[in-house]
Formats: sequence, C-alpha cells, structure tokens
Amino acid sequence: MRIGVLGAGQLGRMLALAGYPLGLQFRFLDPGFDAPAGQIAELVAGRYTERAALERFSLGLDAATYEFESVPVAAIESLSLVVPVFPPIEALATAQDRLFEKRLFGELGIATAPYRNVETRSDLDKAIAEIGSPAILKTRRLGYDGKGQYLIEDASDCEAAWNQLRSNAMILEGVVPFRGEYSLISARSKNGEVVHYPLVANEHKHGILRVSRMAPRTDEMLRLEAQAIDASNSVLERLQYVGVLAVEYFDAGTRIIANEMAPRVHNSGHWTIEGSVTSQFANHLRAICGMPLGSTASRGPSAMVNLIGGVPSADEILRIEGASLHLYGKEPRAGRKLGHVTVVAPDEASLNRSLEKVCALAFATSQG
Amino acid sequence: MRIGVLGAGQLGRMLALAGYPLGLQFRFLDPGFDAPAGQIAELVAGRYTERAALERFSLGLDAATYEFESVPVAAIESLSLVVPVFPPIEALATAQDRLFEKRLFGELGIATAPYRNVETRSDLDKAIAEIGSPAILKTRRLGYDGKGQYLIEDASDCEAAWNQLRSNAMILEGVVPFRGEYSLISARSKNGEVVHYPLVANEHKHGILRVSRMAPRTDEMLRLEAQAIDASNSVLERLQYVGVLAVEYFDAGTRIIANEMAPRVHNSGHWTIEGSVTSQFANHLRAICGMPLGSTASRGPSAMVNLIGGVPSADEILRIEGASLHLYGKEPRAGRKLGHVTVVAPDEASLNRSLEKVCALAFATSQG
Repeated sequence: MRIGVLGAGQLGRMLALAGYPLGLQFRFLDPGFDAPAGQIAELVAGRYTERAALERFSLGLDAATYEFESVPVAAIESLSLVVPVFPPIEALATAQDRLFEKRLFGELGIATAPYRNVETRSDLDKAIAEIGSPAILKTRRLGYDGKGQYLIEDASDCEAAWNQLRSNAMILEGVVPFRGEYSLISARSKNGEVVHYPLVANEHKHGILRVSRMAPRTDEMLRLEAQAIDASNSVLERLQYVGVLAVEYFDAGTRIIANEMAPRVHNSGHWTIEGSVTSQFANHLRAICGMPLGSTASRGPSAMVNLIGGVPSADEILRIEGASLHLYGKEPRAGRKLGHVTVVAPDEASLNRSLEKVCALAFATSQG
Repeated sequence: MRIGVLGAGQLGRMLALAGYPLGLQFRFLDPGFDAPAGQIAELVAGRYTERAALERFSLGLDAATYEFESVPVAAIESLSLVVPVFPPIEALATAQDRLFEKRLFGELGIATAPYRNVETRSDLDKAIAEIGSPAILKTRRLGYDGKGQYLIEDASDCEAAWNQLRSNAMILEGVVPFRGEYSLISARSKNGEVVHYPLVANEHKHGILRVSRMAPRTDEMLRLEAQAIDASNSVLERLQYVGVLAVEYFDAGTRIIANEMAPRVHNSGHWTIEGSVTSQFANHLRAICGMPLGSTASRGPSAMVNLIGGVPSADEILRIEGASLHLYGKEPRAGRKLGHVTVVAPDEASLNRSLEKVCALAFATSQG
C-alpha cells in the first residue's frame, strides 16, 4: 500500500519509519523542500491548496492521512474524492476550531473550562464579566505551542488582548486551577476496535511541551485514566474516528476537564516508540490501513524529553541507561523541536534517575 | 553524519531504519535499481567495481560499511582511501574465504570441523582419505544459503563433486555430528568496547535460515554461550573489529565448533529489533560512528521467522500476540527472503504458542 501524508515534519517522518517494516510506501506533500520526512521518502513540494500539487501527490495512493491539524479542510475534501482520508474530516474540522471542539466536548457531557465565543469587543467584556478573570483570549484557529493566546489577568487587559488578536475569530476560556496536565492517546480502527495507551503526564514551558511521562500506575492515576478513557471513547465513537487521537486533559481535582484534541499522532505519545509494544505511529497506520491494532502495553515506566532549539551530545544521551535518541534531521533554530529522547526503565526509581540526566542535558542545550 | 552502505538489500534497509532516529543519513551503492534500501534512501545504482559509481557514492560520506560479505575487497580498498570503512578490511577478506576463516579460527584456538584445502583432483582424494566421509566439498568463496556445496557421502562421490565445483577454489570440510546450530551476534566499538547478544539457536531448511530463537537461559545454554563469547571475543580482538560480527557455532556435544563468520549484521539477529533494548542494526551504526554501544539486554524470550518466497496475510500475523511484521519491499520469488516476523513474549511458554502460529502461517506461504 502507498500512503500519502499531508505535512512532512517529524510526525510524518516517524510515521514512515514505523510503516516501512509493514511494507507500506509513503509520499508526502509539504511546502518545504527540506522537510524532515522528505529525507526518507518521496516528497511532493507544494502548497496544500495547490491543485496540481495535490493531484501529483494523490496519484496511486491507497490511503491518505495528515500529520498536523492545520491542513486546510478544502484540501482534504478534494483529496477525499480520489482516496480515502483518515482521520475523518469532521474530526479535523472540529479540532481546527476551539469553539467547535468545546461544543463537541459539551455535547458529549465532557467537562471543559468555561468558555464564550468572542466576535465583538463587547462580547469580550460580557464574557469576562460572566466567566471572571483570569481568563485566556485565544484564537479559535491555528493556535499551537502557546501561540495565538493572550492572558487576561483582569478586565483592564481586555483592550490589549482584543487589539492583539482581533484579526482572528476568538474564544475566551476561563482559567481553571488544575493539578496536572495529561493526555490520552487512543487509536480506533475501521471496524470500531479501540485501544488506549496509558495516561501521560505532560510538562510545558513557554507553551511548548518539554516532558511527557507515562503516569505512574497509582490508584489516583488509574482513576484519572478511567475518566479520560470514558471521555475519549465517546469522542472516538461520536466521530466514527479512524486513526490515532490525542486528547489533552487537566486534572481539576474532583474531575478531569478536556482541554483540546489532536486528530493525529501527538508529541506526548513519542515515548511509545520504545515504551510500548506498538508505537502510536504503527497503530495510526494500522488503523488507517484497516489492519488489526497492536498492543498498547508498556515495556516499563517510560518518558520523553523534547529537544528544543539545540541538541545535546548524542554520546552523552546514549550513555544514559534506557535512553534512546530521536533526531528529526532539522537545522537548529530557537524554539524548534529538533528531536526527543525516550527513556524506558524497569521501575519508577530508575526512570527518575535516567530522566534527571536526560533533562539536565536537554535543558542545558535547549533554546526557546 | 552521512553513512555509505555497499549493498542495498534488506540489511541495508534495516540499517537505515535504525539510523535515521540517530540523525544519520544514508547513501547506498547497489547494482539493482529496485533494491529494498533504495526505496527509503539515496541509491547510487552501479557495480561495486565501477570507478565512477564508487566516486559518486563516496562523495561527502563520513563513514562507510557493507551489508554483505561478497563485496569485492578491491572496492573497499579504493573506498578506504577517501572514507573510513568498517568492519576492517581484514575481517571482510577473511570472511570471504572459508580457508582463511578456518585458519583464523585455528590460530585463535577455536575448534572447527576438520578441513583441507583442495586445489587439485588428487588433493580431494587425499583429503577424503584423511578426513573421512561424509564430508562437504565447498567453494572457498561466494557460498551462501547452502549454495556452492556438494555433500560427499563416500569416496565414489568425489568425481561428481569435483566436476561440479572445479572452476572454483575449494575446501573439504568433515561433517561433524552436532546437536544444534547457534550464532552469537557481537558488536565492538572503535575504543574496544564489546557487547554480545544472547546466544541464538537457528533452524535451517534447504540451506536457508528459517527460524532463529534466543536460546532459553538454561544452564546448558549459558555454558554454550560462555564458550561462544570466549571464541568471538578473541576474533573481535584479533581483527581489531569495529561493528557487528556474527559467528555461527555448532554444539558438538563436549565443545562448540565455529562454522563461519559474517562481518555484518546477520539474519539470525533480526529478532533484536523488538527483542532487545538496542537492535543489532543500531549497535552496528553506533560502533562505526564512534558512538557508545547500547544495551543488548533482551525484552523477553524472542524469536524470528523468515518469510521465504511468499508472505502470509499481514492481518493474521499482526493478530498473533507479541508478533511484529517486517517486510523488505521485494517482489515475491521462490527462495527469496521477503521479510521476517519477530516475536517477543513474557515467557518461554507464551513464545512457543505465538511462534507456533507464526510458523504455521509462514511455512504455509513459503516457497523454496
């Protein structure tokens, strides 16, 4: 089978690496000539909305998918006429818009932070009055890694927030005190088979994910995980989802709150490459190709550390017990995700020891 | 770093898959335009002895290696003038010639089957008289997967054997009764660090490897493994080896006997992709790039089944507990290695159960 992937970044690259052993072939579409996946697979360099590029890209594909949720829905619509595209377009359209996403969660009875749609300056004032502050004004679309957001500490910040984001459709979200950020990576196959990876605890800095760690299997975490599984199950079912879905959750004490979802393989699931019997990349491909899903059992307590803006010495990383290096073939630039390190350990204490060493090296070289 | 690999078959392909996460880039040289590694990396299509092809291949490489031991020594010699090539040329030259190989084992005090160099028809008669029959007349060079061999049941077969192989340099090897065939996969780094994978038990049919299995950790196997480690250590040291080395051993009851060696990643080590913390492919690259070697600890009892000539349904394979599929992107042809299945299990009994299922599927579709 030949799989087409819109976007040729590191996610696409890791999809190809997981798919080659399954006998799959890959073609990528990306505007960048030096995209990471283009180094290891066929690349059609072109814009996602460029008809000729899409046609060249789609020629002879058996299935198509995308590695980021900002791909234009119109491109997926025209692609869908000639090749099956997964995850389904409704999932993409929903995940692209914070308002649609919140509404979907609401319809399914999944708690979210309080929110209001903001179309006018007076909507904003009204929303702040209703939700209270602090709150975050966010663009409904194209926000990622903390971009397109403005923290409103109190009502006096509204004017500045409005002026910064006003060219976009917006949503105001209440700030909910939470004890931890989590994500649940799930996969659903064409015939409705569903698997979930263990719940992941995430640490962000400057809006960018730094560390993901398989949540320790304590009673409290298993309780959280069960809530997350319930919520994700209803999303998967409602969207008749096919592929890997990542949903971010906050632990708000008495309950979990869904933050956002990504209809694709996710940075917080990179630890599954070594940490799980089947990686998120392999399971995404198995789902969209109609193959049976693989076991999401973990090989031991696992974690992942992102390499942002700079890369430590490979030798030093590789000497750390249980550590594996994953570089994306990108030129260093501040704030850019250049690679990650996964750690798998026999127990939590060993994981802590190795993780501490990895973080020391990663954070010393990180930029942005 | 950019790594050049002579030969673009499945071994080269799996080297690239293991090396991309380390940030390595790959270029292959192979006479075949549709070679498996060429589907996922840059391929220079040309003969190994073709000067222009070698020059194009070597441009800008940081290190080079080879994926099969029949690559002409002359090609490695000329390549060595412009880029470091590992494993060392002496290892290649030795492994290419059964006589040199036997002599090396002998020098190091490693037992082998009795053998005689055969250059003339009367050499053969003399050799049979000395060694006895049954014995196998083998070409010294270019024999693999059971090719280039003639079993001499008794002296009356000498004439036919001689006539079949006489255009080659030959060696006569005595047939030693053995209880099992094993291989030991080892890696040695530039600074002399050495690691060994657990001993592997191998099953051949028609001279082609069918099943490799991590030897169960019984006292008897650990005793055999210790002997194999001693022998391989002396080979690695003597050749100042860099990279992965596979040595095949027979269990001759009271002692092990070295059969042959391959200065490269080896089919009997494919189970290490899922079965070990670090695969043989990753460790070969880490060795030749001067990186620290990775742990060879196993993730549980493991095995591998080759897919020869035909490929079973991917769905059926993937439903088997602990099974992973590895296809090479080759067109089916009788006797051709098209892929393999690895199995990792929590215990020997589970491994047996899964292995039985994999073998049933693999052997039902195998051809040749």
